[in-house]
Amino acid sequence: MLQPNLIEQLTAIVGPENIDVSAMGRLTYSYDATPQFQTMPDAVVSPRNTEEVSAVLKICNDNRIPIVPRGSGTNLCAGTTPLQGGIVLLFRHMNRILEIDEENLTVTVQPGVITLDMIKEVEAKGLFYPPDPSSMKISTIGGNINENSGGLRGLKYGVTRDYVIGLEIVLPNGDILRTGGKLAKDVAGYDLTRLFVGSEGTLGVITEAILKLVPMPETKKTILALYEDIDDAAKAVSAIIANKIIPTTLEFLDQPTIEVVEDYAQIGLPTEAQAVLLIEQDGPPEVVERDIARIEQICKSLNAVDVRVAKDEEEAEALRTARRNALSALARLAPTTILEDATVPRSKVAAMVRAVNEIALKYNVKICTFGHAGDGNLHPTCPTDVRNQDEIHRVEAAFAEIFEKAIELGGTITGEHGVGAMKAPYLELKLGRAGIEAMKNIKRAFDPNNIMNPGKLFAKESRKRVVVE
Amino acid sequence: MLQPNLIEQLTAIVGPENIDVSAMGRLTYSYDATPQFQTMPDAVVSPRNTEEVSAVLKICNDNRIPIVPRGSGTNLCAGTTPLQGGIVLLFRHMNRILEIDEENLTVTVQPGVITLDMIKEVEAKGLFYPPDPSSMKISTIGGNINENSGGLRGLKYGVTRDYVIGLEIVLPNGDILRTGGKLAKDVAGYDLTRLFVGSEGTLGVITEAILKLVPMPETKKTILALYEDIDDAAKAVSAIIANKIIPTTLEFLDQPTIEVVEDYAQIGLPTEAQAVLLIEQDGPPEVVERDIARIEQICKSLNAVDVRVAKDEEEAEALRTARRNALSALARLAPTTILEDATVPRSKVAAMVRAVNEIALKYNVKICTFGHAGDGNLHPTCPTDVRNQDEIHRVEAAFAEIFEKAIELGGTITGEHGVGAMKAPYLELKLGRAGIEAMKNIKRAFDPNNIMNPGKLFAKESRKRVVVE
Repeated sequence: MLQPNLIEQLTAIVGPENIDVSAMGRLTYSYDATPQFQTMPDAVVSPRNTEEVSAVLKICNDNRIPIVPRGSGTNLCAGTTPLQGGIVLLFRHMNRILEIDEENLTVTVQPGVITLDMIKEVEAKGLFYPPDPSSMKISTIGGNINENSGGLRGLKYGVTRDYVIGLEIVLPNGDILRTGGKLAKDVAGYDLTRLFVGSEGTLGVITEAILKLVPMPETKKTILALYEDIDDAAKAVSAIIANKIIPTTLEFLDQPTIEVVEDYAQIGLPTEAQAVLLIEQDGPPEVVERDIARIEQICKSLNAVDVRVAKDEEEAEALRTARRNALSALARLAPTTILEDATVPRSKVAAMVRAVNEIALKYNVKICTFGHAGDGNLHPTCPTDVRNQDEIHRVEAAFAEIFEKAIELGGTITGEHGVGAMKAPYLELKLGRAGIEAMKNIKRAFDPNNIMNPGKLFAKESRKRVVVE
Repeated sequence: MLQPNLIEQLTAIVGPENIDVSAMGRLTYSYDATPQFQTMPDAVVSPRNTEEVSAVLKICNDNRIPIVPRGSGTNLCAGTTPLQGGIVLLFRHMNRILEIDEENLTVTVQPGVITLDMIKEVEAKGLFYPPDPSSMKISTIGGNINENSGGLRGLKYGVTRDYVIGLEIVLPNGDILRTGGKLAKDVAGYDLTRLFVGSEGTLGVITEAILKLVPMPETKKTILALYEDIDDAAKAVSAIIANKIIPTTLEFLDQPTIEVVEDYAQIGLPTEAQAVLLIEQDGPPEVVERDIARIEQICKSLNAVDVRVAKDEEEAEALRTARRNALSALARLAPTTILEDATVPRSKVAAMVRAVNEIALKYNVKICTFGHAGDGNLHPTCPTDVRNQDEIHRVEAAFAEIFEKAIELGGTITGEHGVGAMKAPYLELKLGRAGIEAMKNIKRAFDPNNIMNPGKLFAKESRKRVVVE
């Protein structure tokens, strides 16, 4: 509980309408999109500008009050749950696009801007912001930066990190920093910009960002390749890239996922196929035509039973939207949906998909797999029920084994969803003791009182393996 | 001086042939490509593998011996000078390309590999490593990573940072870390990979790197645009990009630079023009043809007096090589050459070039300007003589004012050369007190005994301005 004098101080900073200590207000921000994590914060605070963020942080730092910066709470690693109470920080007043600079190809934004709103604004000027997390209709740019969000276009264009070139940051002690700028190059000291991208709100609060834009691709084309054999689909993924074609999008959906997505979206997806690749290329028309023709050829040579080209942009958009809705669709199957994002070198996608299926059988759980195959970034997803403790234990054991397998194949425990509270026990699998220690040292250097999103990234205890009782 | 027992311990690790304490050996590594910085190291040590690096670092850490990792010493910020003595660490035994993975489009290298050797190896397989610092014929990949080197292709393809996806690092305490992997995506904790890129050897020793490759562009084309008015040339730079064309290369050379380069290279450069843009586009033939035609149009509409297309790849390569040799050519003018890389948003290139010329006049020094105009990354270069103390003072004052101007225009004190010892006094101009403090905290977190390349990045005193007596 916050002392009344602290509530008074915070109220004096942000105004009474921007601090909520009601049970309802706090309940609303007690959880995010991750199942099984819920804790009540002590207050929900909505600063109106950077100076107010700085003043709030100083109070929190002086009084050791945890502070959890939160976008739209769409993250899937329990990254924005207020595990140790304290303050949830909202950016509903700091939600403006400050400038689109057409000469330097940059957009300057506040953290509360909705990703898709910004994408639409820059596209209206013929510019392109590639990172497109599936949640972009509701996610915020601030959230995307803190999680280093990926998306469907990551294969060709990279992830959020690759587009953040400047930040305004408030440190726990209230200091305001500016990193980078509208600059293609800047090597003045350590790369604080990229250190903060993906830092999950554990080092400071991002209050403004300069994002790099690129020219809008002239055209794009979308195809679906259908497979009877999951292995062939995975092989096609590697073969396309080994043939030196980098499509914008190269997504994989297994049969159970396709069935669920079709049931939800009703757009005529081929529910009979064992696996489907959703492939998109963009660029100048000649290049798109040529690449799509070569991709079609490669897919067929690897036993695709059918390759369908979307007849127009409307059909293509329907396919992309269906893919983006995979999580929502899967969430209808059971009360609890656990979605992971183990990631491997793309040459190991086939081995990873096989391993996921074997592990699901071994633990007798249902796992649907889809994801950004071109990135080696898979989303094995388990529809389950937290009230069924026996099954939940088996699900956890299965995912622990999936993480281990990903590491064994040269991969990582998370490609784009982050560590948060959910994957903290597994971080040591990827980093080893020395890696964890190095990261804890960085955390202490920025946040010696551990007020920034405490309980995230680092677990009290690392789990090598969940033992099934 | 190293105590005899420490020399014995080091000798036991690397073997007697790999430690040099002779005056000649130490003299060789007492300086780098930066004028005015020279200090003798106590020993030159060449470990044969990561384990030896780890053992050497442990000894240095336990005994507070400074250690300076060094590639080919081509850096221009006194980044590899052993300012506080200690050990210079060479990678002449750790100079192998370990693997080119054509399925995952990666190359795994040891730090001592020469950049151009690696580029040639991957190109032989139809793959492309874009970062091409002008020193690439002799620079090492390890040096490039530590400095986050840029190059002529940065505008379209980015810099070294954008291609480093995994590292093996030895920390000062001897711990061996592995970050990232052959992974398109990895958000398992803080981005240690990018933190180490550009860290100038101040946090640890990089002993292996996984680099991302892209498919080799099908074709490329090079043009020269000649201007009577420097302003028009700078405007053309902005206009090309504002027209949503991103060339591979978009270089600027002013008249004094062209004259010197032509005198050196003898390839028929237009010494009569006040400014020249060297522009290259690569990609599929249709796209290259179209872009080059549009660029030609834009250049002419902004008063280019002539636009010349390189007739073949041989001529294009001669032009690129001439540009890469600008520093060598300028170095022939006077005993001392001071080359800087103030960087601004590309919309400010015209303003920056104007400012440089005014500042040169004001301080009565000769400054030739060339550089990566598309990146806003200029290299104002001053041929001078360190023995002329009066002139050197004026040169330093002029550069201090150039840095201030760059910051005032939203830029930075260094785009690709690094801070090192040379620009340490100016770092606060860009970062402010809070930024310097944040970076010092990172440094302490990794290297509490300050053994890694001490005296770099952080100055004893920040200089807001050099006062001319």
